[in-house]
Amino acid sequence: MISDTICAVSTPPGHGGIAVIRISGSDAFSICNKIFKRCNGFPLKEDLKKANITFGRIFRGDEIIDEVLVSTFHAPRSYTGENVVEISCHGSLFIQQEILKMLLAGGCRLSKAGEFTQRAFLNGKYDLSQAEAVGDLIAASSAMSHRVAMQQMRGVFSNELTALSDKLLDFTALVELELDFSDEDVEFADRKQLTDLANKIAEVIRRLVDSFSAGNAIKNGIPVAIVGETNVGKSTLLNSLLREEKAIVSDIHGTTRDAIEDVVTIDGLLFRFIDTAGIRNTNDAIEQLGIQRTFQKIEQASIVLWVIDLTLEIFDFRFSIFDYQSKIKNQKSKIILTLNKADMLTDEEREQKTAYYSSLHDDYIVISAKSDADIVALEHKLVETANIPQIGENDVIVTNMRHYEALTRALSAIERVIDGLDNCLTGDFLAQDIRECLLHLNEITGKQICTEDVLGNIFSKFCIGK
Amino acid sequence: MISDTICAVSTPPGHGGIAVIRISGSDAFSICNKIFKRCNGFPLKEDLKKANITFGRIFRGDEIIDEVLVSTFHAPRSYTGENVVEISCHGSLFIQQEILKMLLAGGCRLSKAGEFTQRAFLNGKYDLSQAEAVGDLIAASSAMSHRVAMQQMRGVFSNELTALSDKLLDFTALVELELDFSDEDVEFADRKQLTDLANKIAEVIRRLVDSFSAGNAIKNGIPVAIVGETNVGKSTLLNSLLREEKAIVSDIHGTTRDAIEDVVTIDGLLFRFIDTAGIRNTNDAIEQLGIQRTFQKIEQASIVLWVIDLTLEIFDFRFSIFDYQSKIKNQKSKIILTLNKADMLTDEEREQKTAYYSSLHDDYIVISAKSDADIVALEHKLVETANIPQIGENDVIVTNMRHYEALTRALSAIERVIDGLDNCLTGDFLAQDIRECLLHLNEITGKQICTEDVLGNIFSKFCIGK
Repeated sequence: MISDTICAVSTPPGHGGIAVIRISGSDAFSICNKIFKRCNGFPLKEDLKKANITFGRIFRGDEIIDEVLVSTFHAPRSYTGENVVEISCHGSLFIQQEILKMLLAGGCRLSKAGEFTQRAFLNGKYDLSQAEAVGDLIAASSAMSHRVAMQQMRGVFSNELTALSDKLLDFTALVELELDFSDEDVEFADRKQLTDLANKIAEVIRRLVDSFSAGNAIKNGIPVAIVGETNVGKSTLLNSLLREEKAIVSDIHGTTRDAIEDVVTIDGLLFRFIDTAGIRNTNDAIEQLGIQRTFQKIEQASIVLWVIDLTLEIFDFRFSIFDYQSKIKNQKSKIILTLNKADMLTDEEREQKTAYYSSLHDDYIVISAKSDADIVALEHKLVETANIPQIGENDVIVTNMRHYEALTRALSAIERVIDGLDNCLTGDFLAQDIRECLLHLNEITGKQICTEDVLGNIFSKFCIGK
Repeated sequence: MISDTICAVSTPPGHGGIAVIRISGSDAFSICNKIFKRCNGFPLKEDLKKANITFGRIFRGDEIIDEVLVSTFHAPRSYTGENVVEISCHGSLFIQQEILKMLLAGGCRLSKAGEFTQRAFLNGKYDLSQAEAVGDLIAASSAMSHRVAMQQMRGVFSNELTALSDKLLDFTALVELELDFSDEDVEFADRKQLTDLANKIAEVIRRLVDSFSAGNAIKNGIPVAIVGETNVGKSTLLNSLLREEKAIVSDIHGTTRDAIEDVVTIDGLLFRFIDTAGIRNTNDAIEQLGIQRTFQKIEQASIVLWVIDLTLEIFDFRFSIFDYQSKIKNQKSKIILTLNKADMLTDEEREQKTAYYSSLHDDYIVISAKSDADIVALEHKLVETANIPQIGENDVIVTNMRHYEALTRALSAIERVIDGLDNCLTGDFLAQDIRECLLHLNEITGKQICTEDVLGNIFSKFCIGK
């Protein structure tokens, strides 16, 4: 099935101290030996059973291209389950490209995105949900998303699915016993017992399906819209929220500012801030269109920070607050009234205005966006409002849309079984829905699907070289 | 002298399939073992003499942060000459940062740029010029600059310097023999023999000094200014020259366009194109300032492509060509008259205009910037005009400004020796200049200088993690 040998730069693209070029396939050693010599002039040792490191040189003809360390892994004791060679070279783009070109000339094919992990799956090193978790692990940018991906990669989710499958097989066994004797009109399977089992299975699947909204928030970040009239301090607030995170990231890596501009990790949770245009009470048609767009963004948010400038007159805001609640369709987003610029008011003014706004909306916080302590309080409020359950060592959270869809289909299949039992359907009808439920669960671990298309689609989201 | 243990991400910054975190120092194993466990729960084996690969997990408390491969190298058989551990982890920024933070908490210090290579030098794995070449190797973006850096790293340059030192020591031995017997007014050292030797030494140093202009062009790129009036096709020409290179680079890596926008590798040589504002015959004071700046850029260029639009009337260009040659101070830059848009003329027109321009300037080429064949011809002309000598396996080319300066000082010292011999100076004066010559040569290999400042300055240009 897999016959060719693939290669790719597995380290991040660009220029650095070292880079690692990975080769996998039955010809990995022989292709590497076309360009590599140990210091004594000999090729790689191919007869070693253990993973091994060899120092040597990459040659183009007589010219030394680089001095490298080569790590060798013999099938099946490697990441992909095939022969794997990792060349650790100096990290210039020139050297990376030269070595890659020579490997291609030597008979390798450039790997597609995620192809190493796809091979690990095809060779049985991982099931499909574990292999997908490798991609999630690499993409994870917060402690929580990392933890969920790590658990999935370690097989915690797979184990839960296997336990479900086992229960379904028990169910099938009972039903099929009934089928075997169907002529005799005997119910071997106790219907009460079957109903209990189906309900238990449905409960587990439902819990997994329900975990997706938290899982999705953990993986993709909890969307928070910062909304309010113009000049109420939205940008200052965003900058205050982003500050510390940016400092940490750039301290260690010098990562691009742009990429993280609107994302903050608080208590290990990723929050994704959505920028919105300032809302104004206006009759101007074009400006109203912009405001319309702001309302659309509010609908996508889980949390809305509705920022109010306490130094302004109260009546200015009646429009937006009342209007907003009637306009949005998504009732799920939680509004936090963020009463800003509190430091610029007298105590009396502040109390008076706070009393008024709190009478309009229960959930509010009084802050000054320039006060560190207030920002910390707001962060706590965000975490509390997001209400993402703490994830224990063995809790299973579904974060993958494909898994969510398969589970949803499995759930409706098992619900049909329960209905069938209620309506005294015969065993053969029940067996059909049970089989469908099993099929959808097995889709997740990849026991049932192996078409090129589906796999290609799953792994194409990976990095090249993984 | 070196007591602490350092760590850094050695692979390019960012997100990828895998990343490598390198740790070096006497505590490398024990610090790694604070966060790493093998699958059987045991720590790294510390008693192995050979480089070794171990699979296992990185833990924060009970939580698994990543599944990793750890390569261990025992002092002195490592890159730095110290104990070295390389953790090959999944390439998410989150994981890289978490592992780095834990190593810092465990007692590592974040390495400064180039500090691993600096330690390799301090531990005698490389001499200074070889260690510097590691930085050049990583920065090399063309076949030629790569080859020169690789030769220097392999010690070809160091060997040449050692040979020179040996000759100088021979010389000193002869002179000192004379000094020992100076009271007796005997010349043991044959002055003719001394002069021959000094001349030979001077010749070698002069060759090295002279190689710097080629070396500098190889390392930093050959500066080419594309100059001409507005709308003569300068941008089209630049794009045509950049096209193929960009495709190759982005095919493999998706590197940033900006960084290579004006750099092209032709026949393994790096050309650095300098953008200039269009030159016009104008009396406008401000526009003349802009043109002034163009002339400054022309002075920095080794090659000037003076682009002329053949479809325009001839007399338009008299100003610029004649004026140009009288204005520039740098007579070293070579002008190639690039007669563009040749495809838009009849044969007769083309011949007529070409005859005219070639009568003004010997070095010209007739092209259409849109013709691939013409661009190839222009590329050949650029390589030919740059006239960089082919570099053989053991040719020594000086590319480093610090080396160039040391060699220049060594050259003037040895020239003083030759003068001294001509003027019949006594041995003690000669010996002083000889010692100075030796001192400057040894500065290059680092035998004489070891002050923190100088080393810090040399290695600060490196990548972090190398």
